[in-house]
Amino acid sequence: MRVFGIDPGSTATGFAVVDRSSGRFRLIDAGVIRTKSGTPVPERLAAIHAGLAERLGEHPVDCVAIEAIFRHRSSESALRLGQARGVALLAAAQAGHAVHEYNAMTVKKTVGGHGRAGKSDVARVVARLVGVADLKLGEDASDAAAIAITHLMHSPFQQRVAAR
Amino acid sequence: MRVFGIDPGSTATGFAVVDRSSGRFRLIDAGVIRTKSGTPVPERLAAIHAGLAERLGEHPVDCVAIEAIFRHRSSESALRLGQARGVALLAAAQAGHAVHEYNAMTVKKTVGGHGRAGKSDVARVVARLVGVADLKLGEDASDAAAIAITHLMHSPFQQRVAAR
Repeated sequence: MRVFGIDPGSTATGFAVVDRSSGRFRLIDAGVIRTKSGTPVPERLAAIHAGLAERLGEHPVDCVAIEAIFRHRSSESALRLGQARGVALLAAAQAGHAVHEYNAMTVKKTVGGHGRAGKSDVARVVARLVGVADLKLGEDASDAAAIAITHLMHSPFQQRVAAR
Repeated sequence: MRVFGIDPGSTATGFAVVDRSSGRFRLIDAGVIRTKSGTPVPERLAAIHAGLAERLGEHPVDCVAIEAIFRHRSSESALRLGQARGVALLAAAQAGHAVHEYNAMTVKKTVGGHGRAGKSDVARVVARLVGVADLKLGEDASDAAAIAITHLMHSPFQQRVAAR
């Protein structure tokens, strides 16, 4: 099973393609789509959408996983994040993929081992699981990989439960 | 000058194409893109994006006008609105149009005559300006027309100021 993870943001959108077969995780691709802070928002959204659409076109994946967000610092930042998230969800839908959402607590518990796991704990586990050096991935790509891994770890479990 | 106004929303996105020549306003097209509440969010965003892209392709306009939003009831609703707004801004950018933003207060003052103008006051003025019956437009299309009219009323003024 192969999952395209997305960590959307207005200035940096992380993505990671993670494969799991026979219990082993493998990082197929990962990176960040950065947008220039001086450029108008519609152009920045177009860059995020085009970047994700290009990568989604390159990689045959089973689905897309993205962080679910319910609360945010301020409604202003929620609106800005929502705009980036909107074009990410659109790119996934246009590529014909189902989108699975996991909140930050679930990612921390699943990848970091417990709900109080810090960002660096999660990043360390991600690096170990996919077999890359600790800081090589970068925060945004690592977060995207963590979301993809969360789905890969949850989905066989969900299938077992559903099959009962 | 011809403006494409957008009032984005996750369940209903209003749009209106308003033309102004020799001081007279004319409604070229207006409507609402509705999405089904039961369908997954990515599909709903794809419907909003496709609907706007289709209309933007049909109408040669000078620019796009959209409501600027800074504060919102809750960060959750801001995120949802942000997602719809994100795909609307993307459609505008992909059509090659500059996007102008006006906050609700500016729309009320410009179209309704004063900052305490209610929604129905604004709707009445919009209907009168473009010469349609009061309730025929519907709330979402009327709001989109109000934003387009706001830009049409502001932009000659801005040009005069800039030319000094």
